[in-house]
Amino acid sequence: METPLVQSIGRNGGSHEASPAERYIKVRSYTEHLCDPLVPEDCVIQTMEDVSPTKWHLAHTTWFFETFVLKKFVEGYEPYDERFAYLFNSYYVQAGDRHCRPKRGLLSRPTVEEVYEYRGYVDRHMQELLIASENLDSELRRRIDLGLNHEQQHQELILTDVKHVLSENPLHPVYKPGQLIGHGALPPEMQWIEFDGGLFDVGYTGDGFFYDNERPVHKYYLEPFAVGSRLVTNREYVEFMDDGGYDRQEIWLSEGWAARAEHGWRAPGYWESVDGLWHSFTLRGFRPVNLDEPVSHVSYYEADAYARWVGARLLTEFEWEVASAMVPLEGNFVEEENFHPIPVVPGGNGLAQMFGDVWEWTRSQYSPYPGYNPEPGALGEYNGKFMCNQFVLRGGSVATSSSHIRRSYRNFFYPGARWQFTGIRLAKL
Amino acid sequence: METPLVQSIGRNGGSHEASPAERYIKVRSYTEHLCDPLVPEDCVIQTMEDVSPTKWHLAHTTWFFETFVLKKFVEGYEPYDERFAYLFNSYYVQAGDRHCRPKRGLLSRPTVEEVYEYRGYVDRHMQELLIASENLDSELRRRIDLGLNHEQQHQELILTDVKHVLSENPLHPVYKPGQLIGHGALPPEMQWIEFDGGLFDVGYTGDGFFYDNERPVHKYYLEPFAVGSRLVTNREYVEFMDDGGYDRQEIWLSEGWAARAEHGWRAPGYWESVDGLWHSFTLRGFRPVNLDEPVSHVSYYEADAYARWVGARLLTEFEWEVASAMVPLEGNFVEEENFHPIPVVPGGNGLAQMFGDVWEWTRSQYSPYPGYNPEPGALGEYNGKFMCNQFVLRGGSVATSSSHIRRSYRNFFYPGARWQFTGIRLAKL
Amino acid sequence: METPLVQSIGRNGGSHEASPAERYIKVRSYTEHLCDPLVPEDCVIQTMEDVSPTKWHLAHTTWFFETFVLKKFVEGYEPYDERFAYLFNSYYVQAGDRHCRPKRGLLSRPTVEEVYEYRGYVDRHMQELLIASENLDSELRRRIDLGLNHEQQHQELILTDVKHVLSENPLHPVYKPGQLIGHGALPPEMQWIEFDGGLFDVGYTGDGFFYDNERPVHKYYLEPFAVGSRLVTNREYVEFMDDGGYDRQEIWLSEGWAARAEHGWRAPGYWESVDGLWHSFTLRGFRPVNLDEPVSHVSYYEADAYARWVGARLLTEFEWEVASAMVPLEGNFVEEENFHPIPVVPGGNGLAQMFGDVWEWTRSQYSPYPGYNPEPGALGEYNGKFMCNQFVLRGGSVATSSSHIRRSYRNFFYPGARWQFTGIRLAKL
Amino acid sequence: METPLVQSIGRNGGSHEASPAERYIKVRSYTEHLCDPLVPEDCVIQTMEDVSPTKWHLAHTTWFFETFVLKKFVEGYEPYDERFAYLFNSYYVQAGDRHCRPKRGLLSRPTVEEVYEYRGYVDRHMQELLIASENLDSELRRRIDLGLNHEQQHQELILTDVKHVLSENPLHPVYKPGQLIGHGALPPEMQWIEFDGGLFDVGYTGDGFFYDNERPVHKYYLEPFAVGSRLVTNREYVEFMDDGGYDRQEIWLSEGWAARAEHGWRAPGYWESVDGLWHSFTLRGFRPVNLDEPVSHVSYYEADAYARWVGARLLTEFEWEVASAMVPLEGNFVEEENFHPIPVVPGGNGLAQMFGDVWEWTRSQYSPYPGYNPEPGALGEYNGKFMCNQFVLRGGSVATSSSHIRRSYRNFFYPGARWQFTGIRLAKL
Repeated sequence: METPLVQSIGRNGGSHEASPAERYIKVRSYTEHLCDPLVPEDCVIQTMEDVSPTKWHLAHTTWFFETFVLKKFVEGYEPYDERFAYLFNSYYVQAGDRHCRPKRGLLSRPTVEEVYEYRGYVDRHMQELLIASENLDSELRRRIDLGLNHEQQHQELILTDVKHVLSENPLHPVYKPGQLIGHGALPPEMQWIEFDGGLFDVGYTGDGFFYDNERPVHKYYLEPFAVGSRLVTNREYVEFMDDGGYDRQEIWLSEGWAARAEHGWRAPGYWESVDGLWHSFTLRGFRPVNLDEPVSHVSYYEADAYARWVGARLLTEFEWEVASAMVPLEGNFVEEENFHPIPVVPGGNGLAQMFGDVWEWTRSQYSPYPGYNPEPGALGEYNGKFMCNQFVLRGGSVATSSSHIRRSYRNFFYPGARWQFTGIRLAKL
Repeated sequence: METPLVQSIGRNGGSHEASPAERYIKVRSYTEHLCDPLVPEDCVIQTMEDVSPTKWHLAHTTWFFETFVLKKFVEGYEPYDERFAYLFNSYYVQAGDRHCRPKRGLLSRPTVEEVYEYRGYVDRHMQELLIASENLDSELRRRIDLGLNHEQQHQELILTDVKHVLSENPLHPVYKPGQLIGHGALPPEMQWIEFDGGLFDVGYTGDGFFYDNERPVHKYYLEPFAVGSRLVTNREYVEFMDDGGYDRQEIWLSEGWAARAEHGWRAPGYWESVDGLWHSFTLRGFRPVNLDEPVSHVSYYEADAYARWVGARLLTEFEWEVASAMVPLEGNFVEEENFHPIPVVPGGNGLAQMFGDVWEWTRSQYSPYPGYNPEPGALGEYNGKFMCNQFVLRGGSVATSSSHIRRSYRNFFYPGARWQFTGIRLAKL
Repeated sequence: METPLVQSIGRNGGSHEASPAERYIKVRSYTEHLCDPLVPEDCVIQTMEDVSPTKWHLAHTTWFFETFVLKKFVEGYEPYDERFAYLFNSYYVQAGDRHCRPKRGLLSRPTVEEVYEYRGYVDRHMQELLIASENLDSELRRRIDLGLNHEQQHQELILTDVKHVLSENPLHPVYKPGQLIGHGALPPEMQWIEFDGGLFDVGYTGDGFFYDNERPVHKYYLEPFAVGSRLVTNREYVEFMDDGGYDRQEIWLSEGWAARAEHGWRAPGYWESVDGLWHSFTLRGFRPVNLDEPVSHVSYYEADAYARWVGARLLTEFEWEVASAMVPLEGNFVEEENFHPIPVVPGGNGLAQMFGDVWEWTRSQYSPYPGYNPEPGALGEYNGKFMCNQFVLRGGSVATSSSHIRRSYRNFFYPGARWQFTGIRLAKL
Repeated sequence: METPLVQSIGRNGGSHEASPAERYIKVRSYTEHLCDPLVPEDCVIQTMEDVSPTKWHLAHTTWFFETFVLKKFVEGYEPYDERFAYLFNSYYVQAGDRHCRPKRGLLSRPTVEEVYEYRGYVDRHMQELLIASENLDSELRRRIDLGLNHEQQHQELILTDVKHVLSENPLHPVYKPGQLIGHGALPPEMQWIEFDGGLFDVGYTGDGFFYDNERPVHKYYLEPFAVGSRLVTNREYVEFMDDGGYDRQEIWLSEGWAARAEHGWRAPGYWESVDGLWHSFTLRGFRPVNLDEPVSHVSYYEADAYARWVGARLLTEFEWEVASAMVPLEGNFVEEENFHPIPVVPGGNGLAQMFGDVWEWTRSQYSPYPGYNPEPGALGEYNGKFMCNQFVLRGGSVATSSSHIRRSYRNFFYPGARWQFTGIRLAKL
């Protein structure tokens, strides 16, 4: 199932000068490229409610274009299979009934091959549409942008979900063989980079694509603050563990303490002690933990407890956004195909690892910006209705596309989630 | 078990000119006054995990003074019963092991009478201490203030928990017989009171007692906003219900929609339809709903859905705090002994019902203020560790003491909680 | 609340020569006698679904006479409170709606005192009826017999349920102070008493009271078998524990192994290790385990695993019934007021402890006898509908009345139940 | 994946004259034949705990021969993959650790193709062994018999589990297209066939293969009884439904009533009402219910309630065994490849449908026969440890091999199970 990649414009739609048709092909084919290492059996399984089968991701992203683009903009469009609308809607209530989320792993049909046929069918119609409509209607362009960004989000989920699926197998299957990057030198000591307080504009101010939760741009007053110069490493986190971090209730949020007990957490996700040596399951295989890498697969609760233990705290999302303005938007993203966080490059100065590697938990609960109003209709269900009990994460991870992330980008997960690439950056003051 | 009340200074410690010993007696005896209508059997039962038996509240508040005052400030103090520390600690981890919360309803001993003896024992020692130490050590004074405020919080919980306990009984027992207040006139139309935006100081700025979560005072930037002039009424809420409010997923938070299904919510808490007529269980008995009263016993999810349905939103906690500055701190508090919200007084102007009646859900998730640091030790566990996944409520309720509430007071509950007196105030812009 | 006991005829209705009115008084007052040591708070609590509050037992047995006797046989009878029918029906579907079993512990009203008034009211009407109708209608007589036997069953449940309630309290309250019986001599070695096989009649053959599940009398073919001469002792059971009995999956039923893990069983119910010494909670207080006593509070799973470990098996209910014919119907029943099993009397011969002390788990699942037909109507719900997934126990316990038990008496519990006085007798061949 | 079938001796090892090597090939290849209609995705899914993925069945039956035959009887045998012992052991505790049952659906690897390679590897070694050892060691012969019977049990489970898997898919995939058999004539009225009582020998008395739970042969006394001449039909069951059968608590076992409420049962398993017409999901597709077919996919609770409703009862397993002696061992078994029960052939006489079509629930709880002792070691775990809370079923079903069933064969399931082909035969007296 090796997928040919369009190489000229950069993988995964990176260049914004590409035509919509070119960008469409690149993003869509990159999804399939990420699935190349998988066998059909891998694509069916749902190991927990948060995880969806790869097959489902492949079909759902296709359904998105079919429903929100082809059905609206192509007169007389014939859906590939009317019944797929029920199977592959995720949560867009206003787009119709849908198959229950925890049951996604109960579907053997359509087969993986049939889903690829479905993708092909929709892709052909999308290409026709995109080539025919040289000057894209602005609503059409907006929906294609939304669809491609949506697809990129599911690319990230494909990787994190496949990691979870494979990790449940005692045989430790490898997603993609290969070495993990190391530097042979210790990461530099963490520095505290100081920022003045004041009244700042936050939110997306550019003229490209953005999600509605990044707007309206509004003013926010910050007290002076200091930011850790790099991510917290596995070595530092192991010190926390060895100091009884998981047994000291006074450093935990009340909910975190309960979650820790309920799930038996004693280490980050995917860690396992083999003969007294910490190993972890990675997309590159099961291997001893590299202590110089940033710690990953920690919940908000663990990130928060770690910060309290070390006498610091997590950043707010606005501190993060302001601080991120001083560094270029570069990092260990999915295009690097490391599929795993890597140690910080020694010798750097200022803020390192702000983008890529791991999503950084902030202490900000996910709330609407002043004046926020989701658009009416199904597409308005993208963000607003999740603004409750989740925390904002910033910066992207090894599974995020570099063309997908922004300084104002607000990811969000429940505080107990650990299956994403999530890590820790500290703040003070 | 009728309790004599010290009448001269006002019930429940209202006057701040009273001596600490006088205030102590008043607050403590008011707790027992609230329990007068109860039989021993009422005081034992725990109807859900959120609810504690009255007996437990009576003993726990006593344990608080014994542990944090008598044991620290009275040399050679002999605890009433060493084993009570285990039974009546709530969640102060650093104050020792404690009996598991959901098992509080499994304890028949000590009996109610023995708990009153325990209270008497501690009260006598407290009186001796307070009278002996004419000029109170500032830490002692702080702890007494904390203990009395703590006791007042549990007075509120005694009422809300007893309401839940009695409501589970098909015989509909009455906490305290008596008429509910009505005005015979329709509440006035809701007006929108407008406020300018700008940079405001928020947090407690006085020099009296406050909880650590109300500090540090800090600046917050607000956009212009408008506030509903009164609370949402039962009549307005019934319109929402009759318009299919509970069946329109598009107006609900995703979590709210799930909670609604899980619990089968079709109306506010304690409502029951009898022959097509809405009734509700109140501390004054089971009776038809008065449509002019403020709606109460709604969850955050319902308050949020109602607001969206009506085209408005909930306030942030800082909007509330800023708006509250324009009204006096008065309202339908526990000292009125209505034990139930009452219709707004017709003919008023500006903001009504900001204090008392029902706690007002804000859209602000409960987070630490910039620079917040809980004090070390057990007393620091009061607030900080709950700053996750809860929402802030403001203004106090029919079960709150007027001497307990402040403009900067931050109450907090999980968004699904309905057993407190919780209602809805709207905002716009 | 000390209850005067009618002493002349023997406690708890033992003598069958007594008049119905006398027997009624004796059984009913014995129930109250058993409740004498309790305070109102003890009578309200439900510690698990199997347990009912004492108050409920007191009311439910009264409801039984009111519903099945007074309402049928006393013209114009006015129920004490119509609403009690809903609260105190247990499971007699055909007798009307009823309050949900797991919610019995949520009722503070009626109070204990009010329940006693209810008992008094019904008792007065029953006395009038019994004295008026000198020659009892046979159906009336049958129902009184049933009601009194029903009351005796609830006397047993009051004791086992109160034991569970008090045991949940870390203060270890004592039901009734006093010494437990010991003999200062080791129990004799267990002997195997052999029985010939053959075709036997089983079921109740007398002309007194019996439950419908003891009939029809029918033939059953038994192979030769051997019965252990006494109950298994705590000492023997500790050997099983010390030999890793709880960790050897091969001796457990598949369901038992799962139950053991789910509940964390490592010892009989009510046992607790204090500084390495086994203690147990008894109705006489919390004390070190007497190794000479019969083991009690074991589930069927544990009894079955113990038997397999020792190379034996449990009896079938018919083996037990046939064997019991060789011993008198005597033992450590509730009238002895030991409230706890006692060591076997040394020096005996043949089968000891067949009656009283502990109910003996048999390997017979609870099934209808050939030709069994429950009577129509609510009273027919007594037994038949429970004939699924429960195991038969024989012989009575320390909480059973001697006037209640029979050789053909079939008690039944789910195999995981441990809160009754349940123990082990072995069989071979 | 079409599998060539050895036709000459009859499918699935029917002829006992075949050599062990021939029988081995036939049974093993029939398993694969049953899987021919499946795609890899079908073979991975576990829709509930009772269901195992087809892939798991294919591997587990192979593991059985590898573990209990090749490892014992072939010197120097190299297991295909040592790690498979962990993955594909089911519950043979003494054969080592094993993968947790509810997690069988979480394994994408080994792939279906790899599992077929594993089967091939073991089959080749088995053939070598069987051909080399012309006169089979009796223990070897016994284990091969056991392994082939074990494989046949899993053939039945493959069909019932695949049915469940496909039925969860809203697309209604068809296992094998084709018509279902009908007769165009109403089934005859049910007759009552009478049997004398007396003392009977029960248990397996032949000299072929049997499971240990069919022995020892022992005497059992039966009262006279009458047996329904055919299975209960869908038409008869619909009458029960239409008469409010699912709402009449008085005809249900207490546990059944609760199960019915918990699962929302209103009809047999796989039934669905489409526009007021009963349809059912079958291995031949989704289609309207044929009212003349025997009712299938009912739980014990439903069978028992139906019987009580109609004024009859279910048979005991010994009544069934005695009655079955009068009919030949023939019926609608898996070799017919109907994969669904068929209407009784009109015009017959005496007992019809005793074998095949549906397993018949008996009222006998699954217990050991007198003197039963499982063999020591892992193979002894086959039956004994499940003798608790299950009910015996007799006669085989459309998914059973005719060469697998016996008159003395005791199948057993929990009373709530509905995913097997289970139906109802009535008894009286």
